[in-house]
Amino acid sequence: MLGRMYDEQICSIARALEIVGERWSLLILREAIFAGATRFSDIQRSLKIAPNILASRLENFVTEGLFTKSEADEYHVTRKGLDFIPTLLALREWGDRWASPEGPPLAMTHADCGGKVELQLHCKGCAETPRLKDLNARPTKAMHIYQQKKSGRA
Amino acid sequence: MLGRMYDEQICSIARALEIVGERWSLLILREAIFAGATRFSDIQRSLKIAPNILASRLENFVTEGLFTKSEADEYHVTRKGLDFIPTLLALREWGDRWASPEGPPLAMTHADCGGKVELQLHCKGCAETPRLKDLNARPTKAMHIYQQKKSGRA
Repeated sequence: MLGRMYDEQICSIARALEIVGERWSLLILREAIFAGATRFSDIQRSLKIAPNILASRLENFVTEGLFTKSEADEYHVTRKGLDFIPTLLALREWGDRWASPEGPPLAMTHADCGGKVELQLHCKGCAETPRLKDLNARPTKAMHIYQQKKSGRA
Repeated sequence: MLGRMYDEQICSIARALEIVGERWSLLILREAIFAGATRFSDIQRSLKIAPNILASRLENFVTEGLFTKSEADEYHVTRKGLDFIPTLLALREWGDRWASPEGPPLAMTHADCGGKVELQLHCKGCAETPRLKDLNARPTKAMHIYQQKKSGRA
């Protein structure tokens, strides 16, 4: 278990990192999602990760509902786990740009047309592609509820 | 320094995680990018992070070129650091959906129209929004160069 390292933070980024912020976590998800790995031994062989760390991460992922574990000891990624795909793709884009001196090791293309695929911001209101400076962030009513809960705990 | 935990991995996700995979790293970037924090003391106060850990992370970020450090000891995020914004937004979306029982603590909207903003896949070829199953990933020539370098080291 990760514990609540970021418990002071009322923040969805911090909450997500409590689940996948430990070393290897996101690479385990990568194996499950993109390579289709379902078995402990396959993930262990591919990542060359210490078995005790892998066991701990997988147990935590099952507890958190990112994976289910079948009677045949196969791990299957859930919707909650699949929802880390944009995070994985965003990290991939960063690594392609900044840590791939010979160029990206994988090309990700659109099967239909062969075009290059990338993440972008999309406004559900006007369908534009906003830039970061065009964004507003404001606390919601939920933020106040979280703050009240936190001060109640303190 | 993080060391090369994932050195066996010829993968842009792993490369990115070598830079921001340590605890607190992405929250430090969040403070610099979204809250505009530039001073050690401000980041430390906001995150309630141990000063020695913060010092280590900031030093590493300067070494890696994510931040520059001014003569006045202010930290300024570079293009290389700003390029983690999609990762932060992707983690935020996950946390909003799966770890915010009372609803997202922050609302991110388009300043121009007030619409909700989210990440989506975009094909630069046909301008469609592909689904994951519509993507192809294949090794590039660069992958072969990395593999040769790796086997040369082994």
